[in-house]
Amino acid sequence: MACIVAKFGGTSVADIERIERAADKVAAEVKRGHKVAVVVSAMSGVTNQLVQYCNDLSNSHDEREYDTVVSSGEQVTAGLMAIALQKRGVNARSWMGWQVPIICSEVHGKARIEQIDGTRMLDRFKEREVAVLAGFQGVTEGGRITTLGRGGSDTTAVALAAALNAERCDIYTDVDGVYTTDPRVCKNAKKIDKISYEEMLELASLGAKVLQVRSVEMAYKRDIPIQVLSSFDEAIGSDLPGTLVTREEDIMEQEIVNGVAFTKDEAKVTLFNVPDSPGVAAKVFDALAQQNINVDMIVQNISEDGAVTDITFTVPENELDKTMNALKIDDLKGAQIRTDANITKISVVGIGMRSHAGVAQTMFRTLANKGINIQVISTSEIKISVIVAKEYLELAVRSLHSAYGLDQE
Amino acid sequence: MACIVAKFGGTSVADIERIERAADKVAAEVKRGHKVAVVVSAMSGVTNQLVQYCNDLSNSHDEREYDTVVSSGEQVTAGLMAIALQKRGVNARSWMGWQVPIICSEVHGKARIEQIDGTRMLDRFKEREVAVLAGFQGVTEGGRITTLGRGGSDTTAVALAAALNAERCDIYTDVDGVYTTDPRVCKNAKKIDKISYEEMLELASLGAKVLQVRSVEMAYKRDIPIQVLSSFDEAIGSDLPGTLVTREEDIMEQEIVNGVAFTKDEAKVTLFNVPDSPGVAAKVFDALAQQNINVDMIVQNISEDGAVTDITFTVPENELDKTMNALKIDDLKGAQIRTDANITKISVVGIGMRSHAGVAQTMFRTLANKGINIQVISTSEIKISVIVAKEYLELAVRSLHSAYGLDQE
Repeated sequence: MACIVAKFGGTSVADIERIERAADKVAAEVKRGHKVAVVVSAMSGVTNQLVQYCNDLSNSHDEREYDTVVSSGEQVTAGLMAIALQKRGVNARSWMGWQVPIICSEVHGKARIEQIDGTRMLDRFKEREVAVLAGFQGVTEGGRITTLGRGGSDTTAVALAAALNAERCDIYTDVDGVYTTDPRVCKNAKKIDKISYEEMLELASLGAKVLQVRSVEMAYKRDIPIQVLSSFDEAIGSDLPGTLVTREEDIMEQEIVNGVAFTKDEAKVTLFNVPDSPGVAAKVFDALAQQNINVDMIVQNISEDGAVTDITFTVPENELDKTMNALKIDDLKGAQIRTDANITKISVVGIGMRSHAGVAQTMFRTLANKGINIQVISTSEIKISVIVAKEYLELAVRSLHSAYGLDQE
Repeated sequence: MACIVAKFGGTSVADIERIERAADKVAAEVKRGHKVAVVVSAMSGVTNQLVQYCNDLSNSHDEREYDTVVSSGEQVTAGLMAIALQKRGVNARSWMGWQVPIICSEVHGKARIEQIDGTRMLDRFKEREVAVLAGFQGVTEGGRITTLGRGGSDTTAVALAAALNAERCDIYTDVDGVYTTDPRVCKNAKKIDKISYEEMLELASLGAKVLQVRSVEMAYKRDIPIQVLSSFDEAIGSDLPGTLVTREEDIMEQEIVNGVAFTKDEAKVTLFNVPDSPGVAAKVFDALAQQNINVDMIVQNISEDGAVTDITFTVPENELDKTMNALKIDDLKGAQIRTDANITKISVVGIGMRSHAGVAQTMFRTLANKGINIQVISTSEIKISVIVAKEYLELAVRSLHSAYGLDQE
């Protein structure tokens, strides 16, 4: 009699037939006696179409109206899923973000969930009613619709799991789990059975794309185990051989490196001759934060003469124009700005590297052996990231995957 | 400085380019100093697709979920229209039914508007903000989404005009007005410049399809002049030569017959040998009303022997099965039921016929001359309807149009 949140991504509800198949899985969980809440994405392709409409009208559209438009896709799927469940004799009803309510911040287009009132859903569990929640959306205190950013339905699912005190959050998607790297780039990629929140966070933010970063953050913070599962498999829930994202303690054997991640859609910005005085970096990244630009990697080296320094950071490639505008601040008047979108960031991730020496060296030597020049290096406790020219992406990923012994036999 | 409600139908917001054109019209009204509220339908084809999804899943879907699904189309257009207006420097925001709120009855799929709170929209007129309202939708007291039935955005527009005390309600559509009959059936049909609410009500309910019946009812009750206009015309509002639907007193010269209307999608149900005792008809139509079946024409003749009688009525063809189920009541145990979907109802409508004799006779003689057999006759003060076999539809409409002098020169 567990409480489970099951989330179905866009490809898992792409058409009526797939919605029916997803409903079969939910009905099976209900039959086992579980309390189930479902979170759905928009049918695949729908959100892209809606975003396109907004962009066609105006490049600088009102984000509140954008949210109103793009949130509609999940509304459709939630209603359809409720109908599909009822058809299977399952008591179900749809919930929009504003009906729950899921109170969000006012940062339209990229809102954060502030509060979910799960009282009514919990009440209705007593009547064995399945809650079908439209993912990706919420509502501000003022009653305007918000969305959580692309992939936001994962975050909705984990947040709902936290609000309902669920035992786990099943994320049904079009792949059967999290892989050591993208199988399209490296055919030797293998599925990971269990991975820690921290590693998943690095893999997710580094472009694994299976789970939205914020959903993993939230799962980590609230300790909600996430299962990544294929909706195309016949089995359901814990019967499926997916990937379990859970606490480090729950994973017996730690690999040194668990995955090789990469991004293709980032651009590198380098500021040369920035005054090396306190507060300049703060002002630069303040200016970017005010425009809600997601800065990823930031590297600053000590300056030779103590007068000026160089700062390099990466931003999403499609926010490069916005970034350049945001950088028109007085403090950067003497600085030169160079941008390069022709890069890829490649990272190796693993909790085991905390206690193992030589992990970074393996990376650098492997790349050097292939003649790949490393432009920027950045490390954290459990990952090492490098920026290299985009043309080396596949070669670098495959070489590293093999060098760290991740290739499947 | 009038207050105007402008409604754009599905074909008028069918794509981004048409939404832009519609926004041009609204911006022009704002430039003239008018306070404008806009009501939008879904982009044409969208609602049909959404209805199809629900039907594909289940023939007996939960109407509350149906409403959740199909109301999403208007949400998209409202957001897009707000963006298009902002692009033109017009202060605008979208409103969903639940945000206003537009409180509706709980008859999902065919809800009635019970109350519109226009306070916030009126407040924002002071800031010259254009309200863009998603048509067709509302919300119940309990917070579930409702829809008003197909064509419901017209009703939203008129109800909003009443709530805002607007001077007129402009209905932009894909035709340039109301015609004396359907131009696709009779090429001599001509545009009507002015028509009374009552006549329009008869024409609308008889299948003219330009305006939803309930919108005309509401306009009549609240005395809101409606202008039917083409959104494809360059001009706007009162500059356009559309059709004005207004009070009888405001129309100088009344034609005897103002239009010939017809329906194609009705079916005739005849109950033979119904006990001719008080209350039987009430029970029959009670049973139909409980299933929310829209009964249209009802004809009962006096019975010869006083023991049994026959009752004929028409219902939408797609509700015939539902009707037959509803008629399984004890009081009809001895009755025979015969149905015929192969019929058309043809009506001539005109306020002038109140004071003119011989109008009915012209109709009957015209049809007789063409060898068309009249199955059922029903009259009101301002209309005469007959049921004939469907195959005579075009011939009957053209003959009557000509007989009443409606052909354009």
